[in-house]
Amino acid sequence: MSLLVIGGSAANGLHEEIASILGVEHVSVEYKVFPDGESYVRLPVDVSGRDVVIVQSTYAPQDKHLLELILLADAANDLGARSVTAVIPYLAYARQDRRFREGEAVSVKTVLKLLRSIGIDRLFVVEVHKEESLVFFNGPAYNVNVMDKLAEPFKDLASTEDVLVLAPDIGARRRAERFARSINAPVDYLEKRRDRVTGEVTVKPRELNVKDKVVIIVDDIISTGGTIALAASQALKQGAKKVMVACVHALLVGNAMDKLRNAGIERIVATNTVPVPEGVEVVSVAEPIARALIEL
Amino acid sequence: MSLLVIGGSAANGLHEEIASILGVEHVSVEYKVFPDGESYVRLPVDVSGRDVVIVQSTYAPQDKHLLELILLADAANDLGARSVTAVIPYLAYARQDRRFREGEAVSVKTVLKLLRSIGIDRLFVVEVHKEESLVFFNGPAYNVNVMDKLAEPFKDLASTEDVLVLAPDIGARRRAERFARSINAPVDYLEKRRDRVTGEVTVKPRELNVKDKVVIIVDDIISTGGTIALAASQALKQGAKKVMVACVHALLVGNAMDKLRNAGIERIVATNTVPVPEGVEVVSVAEPIARALIEL
Repeated sequence: MSLLVIGGSAANGLHEEIASILGVEHVSVEYKVFPDGESYVRLPVDVSGRDVVIVQSTYAPQDKHLLELILLADAANDLGARSVTAVIPYLAYARQDRRFREGEAVSVKTVLKLLRSIGIDRLFVVEVHKEESLVFFNGPAYNVNVMDKLAEPFKDLASTEDVLVLAPDIGARRRAERFARSINAPVDYLEKRRDRVTGEVTVKPRELNVKDKVVIIVDDIISTGGTIALAASQALKQGAKKVMVACVHALLVGNAMDKLRNAGIERIVATNTVPVPEGVEVVSVAEPIARALIEL
Repeated sequence: MSLLVIGGSAANGLHEEIASILGVEHVSVEYKVFPDGESYVRLPVDVSGRDVVIVQSTYAPQDKHLLELILLADAANDLGARSVTAVIPYLAYARQDRRFREGEAVSVKTVLKLLRSIGIDRLFVVEVHKEESLVFFNGPAYNVNVMDKLAEPFKDLASTEDVLVLAPDIGARRRAERFARSINAPVDYLEKRRDRVTGEVTVKPRELNVKDKVVIIVDDIISTGGTIALAASQALKQGAKKVMVACVHALLVGNAMDKLRNAGIERIVATNTVPVPEGVEVVSVAEPIARALIEL
């Protein structure tokens, strides 16, 4: 299989890494924004008859990055690509995966339907919020597990210190368990409540076995940092020695970094599915993506 | 037919006007943006069994407004709407209607395909850049002609002054002719050249019969104002008494207004397909849209 890996403007370097691991050709899309705000995309190489892999993350501005991917996929098909695979390291809208209130759009469903209907043959995403959502793609869609990668920087620590892995809410539990297994640590969880109208998040107090332990809070997405900061405060209040964070998609919007620091978090590890600010240790997900691309 | 007219966040008030003309119910979508930049949409009324008309323009941020429309249309179908009609007063990406250079996305094709594939049954756009583009929708798509409306504010002037309608390039000629017919004025045109790589626009000098006349430059879209400013300068240089502008979609990005004023343009008339800055006279396109909705 001779793949051509194409990086969109939000590939965050992953197209180069993936192509290098696979030993295949890669190219960056020619991308610009017109003065009125419209995107312009151009494939700078001939794609006819080729198996094309488009790498494009969909962090903010999500809709712009999403439309760029759609324009690229449609152009590749139009120009005779033999197949079009999309790699979306961070899939936007994954948290709106059901109708919490009557009348709401189930955004992830719409987005996945769109991607399929525009002619994407295969889809790879990294640690999507809920794996079940991928059925909405209605085609071959794979969730790349990167918890082993994310846990790597904590391996030494886990062998010398008393570590507890903490899921900040029940939804994050399975993911935290995979992480914990990778470093042979125990796992516990908190319960979060979100008011669907106001968006306010609270943590249900629950006794944790954190006394004098190094706590690693594990989650898929950090957005404003509110949930993680609450979890960190809980852990420290109950006697944790140190609190660290491992997360896949570190969106860290607004003053999230300050919020995390102020909550006493000493170390933040994340992946390169989205660009992260200084002070965050970065682990690349290129290798698990590359492996998935050739195995699946 | 009992329509329900739903206004998206970029309806610019047109949903209310259209519903009022038709004497039908209207409602505004519940719209917000999450802290990370994702859109949230909710239909605040029951749409099941109803013929829904979604009004949403796609001025900047184009991709955000486009995705909002797509989320709304998919949600309306999901929630049992009998039919979904989209009214897009200003259709983004309409100018990328062919492959000017090999490898480019034909963006308007992709966008129209998307809208159809997400389940929009009928589409209405206002004075789309090229009417032929609508075939890409692959379904019932209508271009609403509003040149009579746009010409109305110039009727008195045309009956008392010596008026010439000027198309700033050959592509705008047909539209200018429709405008001119509406006010019984003669029409002439300029020839524009655009460098497809640098984007630079120049006007091919051409003798115009503008001496001592009031020139009305007519175009579909004003983006940066460069083309219109060049046309105005040409007209004034060749002896025009006054220069005015009538345009459908006045995007007026950046310092476009200054550019137009500096080129000696005395009056700018546009429609409400997009919000316009102060100093622009606005004509509503609600009536021709409402008429098209019931006739077609």
